[in-house]
Amino acid sequence: MNAELLARFHGVIPAGGVGTRLWPLSRAAAPKFLHDLTGSGSTLIRATYERLIPLAGNNIMVVTGRVHRTAVLAQLPEVGDLDLVLEPSPKDSAAAIGLAAAILYRRNPETIMGSFAADQVIRPEGVFQVAVREAIHTAATGKIVTIGIRPTLPSTAFGYIRAGERLSVTGAPTARDVVEFVEKPDEDTARGYLADGGYLWNAGMFVAPVALMLKHLERSEPVLYAGLMEIADAWESGDREETMNRIWPDLPKTAIDYAVAEPAAAAGDVAVIPGVFDWDDVGDFAAIGRLNPADENSGVTVVGSSKRVYSDNATGVVVTDSKRVIALIGIHDVVVVDTPDALLVTTKEHAQSVKNTVETLKNQGMMDVL
Amino acid sequence: MNAELLARFHGVIPAGGVGTRLWPLSRAAAPKFLHDLTGSGSTLIRATYERLIPLAGNNIMVVTGRVHRTAVLAQLPEVGDLDLVLEPSPKDSAAAIGLAAAILYRRNPETIMGSFAADQVIRPEGVFQVAVREAIHTAATGKIVTIGIRPTLPSTAFGYIRAGERLSVTGAPTARDVVEFVEKPDEDTARGYLADGGYLWNAGMFVAPVALMLKHLERSEPVLYAGLMEIADAWESGDREETMNRIWPDLPKTAIDYAVAEPAAAAGDVAVIPGVFDWDDVGDFAAIGRLNPADENSGVTVVGSSKRVYSDNATGVVVTDSKRVIALIGIHDVVVVDTPDALLVTTKEHAQSVKNTVETLKNQGMMDVL
Repeated sequence: MNAELLARFHGVIPAGGVGTRLWPLSRAAAPKFLHDLTGSGSTLIRATYERLIPLAGNNIMVVTGRVHRTAVLAQLPEVGDLDLVLEPSPKDSAAAIGLAAAILYRRNPETIMGSFAADQVIRPEGVFQVAVREAIHTAATGKIVTIGIRPTLPSTAFGYIRAGERLSVTGAPTARDVVEFVEKPDEDTARGYLADGGYLWNAGMFVAPVALMLKHLERSEPVLYAGLMEIADAWESGDREETMNRIWPDLPKTAIDYAVAEPAAAAGDVAVIPGVFDWDDVGDFAAIGRLNPADENSGVTVVGSSKRVYSDNATGVVVTDSKRVIALIGIHDVVVVDTPDALLVTTKEHAQSVKNTVETLKNQGMMDVL
Repeated sequence: MNAELLARFHGVIPAGGVGTRLWPLSRAAAPKFLHDLTGSGSTLIRATYERLIPLAGNNIMVVTGRVHRTAVLAQLPEVGDLDLVLEPSPKDSAAAIGLAAAILYRRNPETIMGSFAADQVIRPEGVFQVAVREAIHTAATGKIVTIGIRPTLPSTAFGYIRAGERLSVTGAPTARDVVEFVEKPDEDTARGYLADGGYLWNAGMFVAPVALMLKHLERSEPVLYAGLMEIADAWESGDREETMNRIWPDLPKTAIDYAVAEPAAAAGDVAVIPGVFDWDDVGDFAAIGRLNPADENSGVTVVGSSKRVYSDNATGVVVTDSKRVIALIGIHDVVVVDTPDALLVTTKEHAQSVKNTVETLKNQGMMDVL
């Protein structure tokens, strides 16, 4: 890859999303991206940042909630003031990624941004980086490029990308046109997608010229676009925070998929690089079981610092940072999440139901543990 | 019952036994009898004491470990100094019940003692008291009288009492001779006992003239007998504690069943009153599920003060005194015991295995939570 092209690249890490299905580990004050969920020693956001360094150096912007400022800077001390976008309140992905695009555009209209969520697990890094390089090459031809994940099962938890014809891009041998983005399917449809072979999971990874992102954003969400550009105009001047406080609260709340990706695909402006790396969005505690090896002797996966987990004829996942003894007896595929103020006991099979539980606890006013 | 006979009666409550199968709720420092396991508002030892008051007034002796002195007196402030026997170390039931018999004998050789473990649940109290009255009448004829429990299932967890001929005792219409005590049977044998109808569970309840208890103890365990009598001789004098400290450590350790009940039965000296009350020895967490009603809405039985247990498609037992939120999702017949330093997650089916776990934790040196 020529250095000139790579010099245009700027990483963006939207770090939002509590990770409700990982409650009570993840919660408003300690969202998923601030946890080490793979036993790697790194939080997910730190691992995401480090994955981008070989491509972007420290040209990486982070978009997160104001409340997470201290925690994020503790994880990413390299992030400069102008590359740390602090949202006064959650406004969904179009505002977060759109603002990053707008700020980067004002800094340099030739920038190619690469947006990667802060809470995904990707291995091996080298394979990911090859895909991003292909995506940068493809983006430079005037495309919004998503990196789609080769499905390994007929998942109903993800949206899909329907890939079209191969493109002919120097430096991007696997690039393909995108026909459309499709919503999370039912199980039969998902099975069809898997059999078809032409569908990829939408992992929300976008590599694109900021100018093209903004063009589509302006077309489909003009009010949002205008607000974001006004904030971007003030970004490097003194009244950044005042402008943010004034404009942000009234911005429309929508997803980048609706605001940019889908209309851009319809306009023939989207390409995809099939990602052949291992990818996991750590969507629930079953994923934590997959991503962490079980103890050889016990069959139980322990995430956290405790060495005081005892099991007898038991399998499953224990997440704990306490010093408590945890004993599991005669219970299988169990999920136990032990935090100082909340305890979850469920099974891997029911890992997705945790989200409903959090909703119910919210309705019952148990905000102190959410 | 004539008042003269009842005046001879003295209750004895041996309060030993950690209740290992109820770990981590029950443990060395907080044994089973100090817990309220039925949601009644009373600890098991308090309920045992109150069940005896209508028969014995405050003529009730408690035998427990020295370490439990404060906790027991907090539960039973009525117990006088001379009726509180504090064991320097555990010596099994023959020493505990034998010492009570010896002390009571020195106080009044005509005494009829009634010994009832501190950690059983009995309902209704009135039916129990009728059985004890029959037992007192029968004991007065010169018998060691046990109250046997009508089996409701072919349990392999209890020893059995083989009842013989009906006796003809005024005031004890249901009294029968005891042919023998039999050890915990295997399942086929237990089924046979149940079908036979002539077998009762041995709940370790004895009503007997103290003189007769001591006669059999002297015959089968002369060393133990001599030691206990020496302690009893010193009991109401000033050197009670010195004598206890000197003699207790070397006393033989054996069960009252071997030392007294079985040889007495062989000698034709034992009778039984069939108990038709509900009885539970709260042997494990499955019993706690039986003894406490499940929440109508949730299907989960909560024992403890917490109002913060949430369940979604879950059944089982939660024991907690913490303020933590506990969420159970999609898991059935689960047992969750939440204490400050130890957490147990198992199933009702595996409730009996808790004992092995405690053994293992002991071997691993986790004494701080046992």
